[in-house]
Amino acid sequence: MLLKESYDRLKKQAKKDLGSNVVLHLLRDLYNQSAHYLEGVERKEIPSKVDNKKYFMFSLDAKNSRAVNSNLYLDDVNEVEGFFSAIEQNNYAGLASDVLTKLAYSVVITFISSIDLIKKGDIKTPGTYFEIFCGHMMARLLEVNPKTRIPILNLDRSATLPTDFIFDLGENRNKFHVPIKTSTRERVIQVWAHQRVLDGVYGLERFKGILICLSETKKDSRSHEVIEICLPTQWKVYQSFIARMHRVYYFDIPEKYSVLNSQEPRIPVLTFGDLFREVEELTAN
Amino acid sequence: MLLKESYDRLKKQAKKDLGSNVVLHLLRDLYNQSAHYLEGVERKEIPSKVDNKKYFMFSLDAKNSRAVNSNLYLDDVNEVEGFFSAIEQNNYAGLASDVLTKLAYSVVITFISSIDLIKKGDIKTPGTYFEIFCGHMMARLLEVNPKTRIPILNLDRSATLPTDFIFDLGENRNKFHVPIKTSTRERVIQVWAHQRVLDGVYGLERFKGILICLSETKKDSRSHEVIEICLPTQWKVYQSFIARMHRVYYFDIPEKYSVLNSQEPRIPVLTFGDLFREVEELTAN
Repeated sequence: MLLKESYDRLKKQAKKDLGSNVVLHLLRDLYNQSAHYLEGVERKEIPSKVDNKKYFMFSLDAKNSRAVNSNLYLDDVNEVEGFFSAIEQNNYAGLASDVLTKLAYSVVITFISSIDLIKKGDIKTPGTYFEIFCGHMMARLLEVNPKTRIPILNLDRSATLPTDFIFDLGENRNKFHVPIKTSTRERVIQVWAHQRVLDGVYGLERFKGILICLSETKKDSRSHEVIEICLPTQWKVYQSFIARMHRVYYFDIPEKYSVLNSQEPRIPVLTFGDLFREVEELTAN
Repeated sequence: MLLKESYDRLKKQAKKDLGSNVVLHLLRDLYNQSAHYLEGVERKEIPSKVDNKKYFMFSLDAKNSRAVNSNLYLDDVNEVEGFFSAIEQNNYAGLASDVLTKLAYSVVITFISSIDLIKKGDIKTPGTYFEIFCGHMMARLLEVNPKTRIPILNLDRSATLPTDFIFDLGENRNKFHVPIKTSTRERVIQVWAHQRVLDGVYGLERFKGILICLSETKKDSRSHEVIEICLPTQWKVYQSFIARMHRVYYFDIPEKYSVLNSQEPRIPVLTFGDLFREVEELTAN
């Protein structure tokens, strides 16, 4: 099908030049195709156990999408089209951070929900797509493509280590370690451990760690009830004893993590839209 | 079926008292049942890409077990019966470490291969069973049951952290952090990260880290060709920059990891049978 073809092209082009206009046009293309696909599809409100958040799911032929945050999802394809123009021009003037979060969320969840309906049980495509989308945004905002291997010099023989995205702004400028996950759960300790390795090899916080996540929602397969799975105490232990993450950005931010922003040890957990507002500060120096 | 009933009882009793005779009798019972189940089952030699190792698989009604190391697998149920008696009496006199490795491997792989044939795609049962078997052996050898939570005191409010098995020999004596995995792959960084957290909370190597693994083999689903997936460079990086693991014990030890025993940074990777020979040394003090 057409969506699959465009997605395969996206993967190929993302490998070649992640921050390119070709990738942006494919992301736009995938959004438009999947928005069109979802046009007539029924939306069912589903019970939410998450404070102050409402969710629905797309439902077609007895197949259901994951939970979609009703407050973050924008229906207006033209509004999202404006977001793609803003990305292309790297000009987000007039777009508040909460609007940017909604726009980005809508782009991503539209494609991922379509995949949920088209290919039941496929978790790889949403994960890879989300990594490409966020990686593309970071490559544009930081004006450099990422690497996914770094040299390790401290062994008898030199070697390289596979990593998440590494954005290196150049000599004497900031470097970023950017893991990207649709959700974290118990696997999140890997993020801090990778940061620890970079701290060990290159010096403390020479690489600033930036974790980007979609959400922490889990939808019960029978009742469709939505919960958020958060482990804030474990995050604090990791931030205290493994390494320091510089930022965490969420598309659908859990309250239990956003409060970590004002506790000790501080973990700055913000919305994805906030990234656009502080990217200059992040890249200064 | 009977095997399932015994397994459910095993899980229940393991939670109550992991090092108990009840658990040992259930492990023996499960071994005998699954050895009996495999008696008439065809064994097919499968192509091995692993140097100096030969593998076969059990094959029944178009279903196949995982790869079984031909050199480690003992056919003689009576010989294995003797192993269970040795465990019960905590007396391993006359059993060399390579024999102990084969005995333990045979017990475990007999049950797990049966599950592979009975319940295709079930990865949870083998993992849980392996954890119970190894946890039981450690509880007997160290003469104490493990905990799976430890208190974390360094936050404003006290909290507990879920952990792998923790064996605490008591005041002023050694404490062990014992993760148990059927195979590690890229998830292994979690083991070093958890060790790092314990080092941070309780002081460097106050808990000695002991990783126990079954094997690193992977069998191709079509050709049945067996390979070993090893990431020795990454292990060295983790041992250098995250924490120090005190021991790694393998049932089916990969050559690429056993050489780490004589390189820098040293990672003592040994066979499971070696554990029996050095447990006194490990627990001294």
